[in-house]
Amino acid sequence: MSDQHTLLTIAVLGGTGKEGSGLAMRWALKGYRVIIGSREASKAESRAAEMNAQLGGEFIKGMSNPDAAAQADLVVLSVPYSAHKATLETVKEQVSGRVLVDLTVPLQPPKVRTVHLPEGKSAALEGQALLGSTVKVVAAFQNVSAEHLGDPHHVVDCDVLVCGDDAEAKQAVIQVVEATGMRGVDAGPLANAVAVESLTPVLLYINKAYNVKGAGIRITGI
Amino acid sequence: MSDQHTLLTIAVLGGTGKEGSGLAMRWALKGYRVIIGSREASKAESRAAEMNAQLGGEFIKGMSNPDAAAQADLVVLSVPYSAHKATLETVKEQVSGRVLVDLTVPLQPPKVRTVHLPEGKSAALEGQALLGSTVKVVAAFQNVSAEHLGDPHHVVDCDVLVCGDDAEAKQAVIQVVEATGMRGVDAGPLANAVAVESLTPVLLYINKAYNVKGAGIRITGI
Repeated sequence: MSDQHTLLTIAVLGGTGKEGSGLAMRWALKGYRVIIGSREASKAESRAAEMNAQLGGEFIKGMSNPDAAAQADLVVLSVPYSAHKATLETVKEQVSGRVLVDLTVPLQPPKVRTVHLPEGKSAALEGQALLGSTVKVVAAFQNVSAEHLGDPHHVVDCDVLVCGDDAEAKQAVIQVVEATGMRGVDAGPLANAVAVESLTPVLLYINKAYNVKGAGIRITGI
Repeated sequence: MSDQHTLLTIAVLGGTGKEGSGLAMRWALKGYRVIIGSREASKAESRAAEMNAQLGGEFIKGMSNPDAAAQADLVVLSVPYSAHKATLETVKEQVSGRVLVDLTVPLQPPKVRTVHLPEGKSAALEGQALLGSTVKVVAAFQNVSAEHLGDPHHVVDCDVLVCGDDAEAKQAVIQVVEATGMRGVDAGPLANAVAVESLTPVLLYINKAYNVKGAGIRITGI
C-alpha cells in the first residue's frame, strides 16, 4: 500500500451489519483508517470494540452515521434498502463534495429472489438524485455475498462491478475494492447500476435453486 | 444425445444474423433439426445454403419466419430490439402453445453501453405480454458475444442465464443451451430477465473500456 492509501479515511455507514463489518475489517487490515457508523453511536462503538478484539488491535472507531461521514475521505453506505433514503438524509450535509460508495440493493421482501425495480430504477440513482451533483456516487459490492464478506480472511470468488459518472471517483473506488482482495471492474456510468443491483436477486435465486450459499459472478474475457 | 433431442426441431427466427447463425450451426452439429427464419424466405434459404456449405452437409433449412415457427418444437428469436415487436406479431399465431426462447436485448443505439429499460422493463416481458399466456417465453443467451457464438467451434467462456415462469420449458431450454457447449443456469422467473438483459450493455461497456471483444460472465459458487 502507498502512503496515499494509508492516509485515506473510510467511513462505513451501517457498518454494524455483516457486509459493512466485513468490509471495515478488510480495509482496517490493509492500513486504512476506518470508522463504522450506525444510527446510534453507542451501537457503533460496541460493534467497533468487538471487531477490534477480533482483529487484535485498535483498528476501527464507532460513531453516529453523520459523525463518521464528516470525518471520512470516502463514505460507504451499507444499509438495507428500507433504510436507504432515511440514512442518506441524515448525512446529506456531511457527504457534500465527497465520494459516496453505495452498496444498496433494492430488494423487496419477501420476494427477494425476483428483480424489483424501484421508482428511480436503481438505489444508487435514487441516492444520486437525493444527494445532488456535488456528491460523487459510485455503486459497488452489490453482488458480493455478505456471508463470505463477513469473514475478513475469506477469499471471495466474485468480481465487483463498479459504476459511476465521475471517472476519478470510480478509479478511487476500484482501488479500494482491490484492497479487499476482490477484482474491481469498471462497469460504466451510474445508470448501469440498474444491471448490477438487479443481478443480486438473480444470485439469491441461484443460491436457493442450487442449494448453495454465496453464488457470485466473474467477468470473463478481460 | 438422446433420441428425444434428435427429434426436436428448432426454428431460429432472425437466423441469418451472426448470433442466430452461430446457434443454428451448433444445434445442427448436435443432431437437432434446425430451420432458420427470416423476413424474406429467399434470404433465409441462401443463408442456410451458405451454412450447409460451411458444415459440409444438408443440415439447415431456410424459410420465412412464420413458416419456420410453424414447423418447430422450439422457437428461438434472435432479432435486434428494433424488430422485436414486429417479428413477434408475424409469428404470434404459429408460436401459440410453444416455447419461445427470447434472446433480445433492448439496446438503445447509439448508447448501447448504457442500460436502457424499455417500457415493459424487459424485451422478454414485453414478448410474453404480446404473445399471451399460451406461449411459454424463456429468456436466454443475451450475454453471449455474437462474435464468439458465430464460430460454431469456438468454446465460449460464458454462462447462459435462463429465466422463465414455466419450470418445464426452462429445463428444456437449459438442455438446448448445454448442447451449444455452454452452461445453462436457472436464473429464476421471467421477471429476472430484466437483470440479464441489462447486463449486456455493461458487457459492451467493458469490451470498450478494457479493449477486448466478447467479455462474458460466469456464475461462481455453484
